[in-house]
Amino acid sequence: MLIVGELLNSSRFAMRALLEAKDKTAIQKIALAQEAAGAHYLDVNCGVFVGEETEYLCWLVDTVQEVCSLPLCLDSPDGKALKAALPRLKNGRPLINSISAERDRYEQILPLALEYKAKLIALAMGDAGIPATAESKVAAADRLYNDLRGAGVAAEDIYMDLLVQPIATTEAGAAPLLAAASRLRVLEEEIEFIVGLSNISYGLPNRALLNRCFLIQAVAAGIDSFILDPLDKELMGAYYAARALAGRDKYCSAYLKAHRSGYYGNIN
Amino acid sequence: MLIVGELLNSSRFAMRALLEAKDKTAIQKIALAQEAAGAHYLDVNCGVFVGEETEYLCWLVDTVQEVCSLPLCLDSPDGKALKAALPRLKNGRPLINSISAERDRYEQILPLALEYKAKLIALAMGDAGIPATAESKVAAADRLYNDLRGAGVAAEDIYMDLLVQPIATTEAGAAPLLAAASRLRVLEEEIEFIVGLSNISYGLPNRALLNRCFLIQAVAAGIDSFILDPLDKELMGAYYAARALAGRDKYCSAYLKAHRSGYYGNIN
Repeated sequence: MLIVGELLNSSRFAMRALLEAKDKTAIQKIALAQEAAGAHYLDVNCGVFVGEETEYLCWLVDTVQEVCSLPLCLDSPDGKALKAALPRLKNGRPLINSISAERDRYEQILPLALEYKAKLIALAMGDAGIPATAESKVAAADRLYNDLRGAGVAAEDIYMDLLVQPIATTEAGAAPLLAAASRLRVLEEEIEFIVGLSNISYGLPNRALLNRCFLIQAVAAGIDSFILDPLDKELMGAYYAARALAGRDKYCSAYLKAHRSGYYGNIN
Repeated sequence: MLIVGELLNSSRFAMRALLEAKDKTAIQKIALAQEAAGAHYLDVNCGVFVGEETEYLCWLVDTVQEVCSLPLCLDSPDGKALKAALPRLKNGRPLINSISAERDRYEQILPLALEYKAKLIALAMGDAGIPATAESKVAAADRLYNDLRGAGVAAEDIYMDLLVQPIATTEAGAAPLLAAASRLRVLEEEIEFIVGLSNISYGLPNRALLNRCFLIQAVAAGIDSFILDPLDKELMGAYYAARALAGRDKYCSAYLKAHRSGYYGNIN
């Protein structure tokens, strides 16, 4: 069960501007706000700065760590950027976002994960692209999971991402992903899943509603970890409510605690 | 896929008062508002008027039908009240809420359903009470479904209610109900499910949030029909979003139409 705060991502227009301006104060404020809202990890991404990603990522890591004690999720497919940033991490275990079964990526990232004892977000895809059906998602995820386990990565250090595709462009909606998660839970009891929310609603109106509904359905399918905006109180409220409904919050105690602590908005 | 409007129910304090006052205008306004919001049936319930249920129910049926062309869902376990109200219905097929496998109830209600060609909400329980596990819910529902089919009720006229129990009092939350729905869909491809939302959140804060999350998870489990407040735009928005995500809304066209028509609230 992991909430990864998504706001420190250079593909967000506002964050790109703050990074270009090296606005430490504003960036640190966003880091602390996500920590206060209950995030367990903070995603850091400088992927838009082609050719300068390594320098930006190292600066962002140092800047966040000056004030924030959360562990970081290094969001890059680039071995060079990861190799430079990993030794700078000071808080807890690193999380790398992400490895996949694509040969180059796998071979670049696996040794770094082992060397730095990093947890991994594992994209259930290989060089043939994103699997579309439940069956092919199950097959891709199961193979990658077992490859990583065989290479020495512990089960609890793997967060499998079954890769959402926009429902506007796929006839089956999110059903293949949800069905794949349920089936994989039977095959691999210990497997953990993670989902990034926002792709699902691409091209449709009222995206926040669709993202929230998707999170709620994902929780019912056994998905417990999300990359999301923890400052979105309605989304966080949906997360706690969905877990209580799914029977994964004994006596609804996390739901009740979140309610009392004002972690989520009352959307009545 | 059936939205049954729940507002004309005497167990709601405001409705009881309107019924006692025989306030035709106010009651007709609530009926018309539910119709305008997209309800397919209107539930009518006068169960709180013990000893006078039949008279109240007949008056309510007549009052609603004066202005509203929706078919009605007669909400009573009482054969006498149903027998008096059924012949008064003028719009479409009646829906009876509800039959169950409890012997008395089954024997009272089945002949009425057959005589008046009524559709049925079928509670998946017998004289031993509400089944708590997924397995026992599946067994109870499958038996009742097959009994009704054997007695001559068409598959599409049965709306199976797997009976929610408050998550505050059950360790497994809504998971047994959701798992039972998924498994029954495999056993009986044509089976339709219906759920009443509000019991699930009994005893917890922010009930509207829990009810809405439950609807979203229920849709993902293959449940398409609900007894709910169609005037709750956030709930209706969640319904359309959940169906689009579940891959049961081709090209998201119902979602887009509902968005354009203002059927649901934008909860950004």
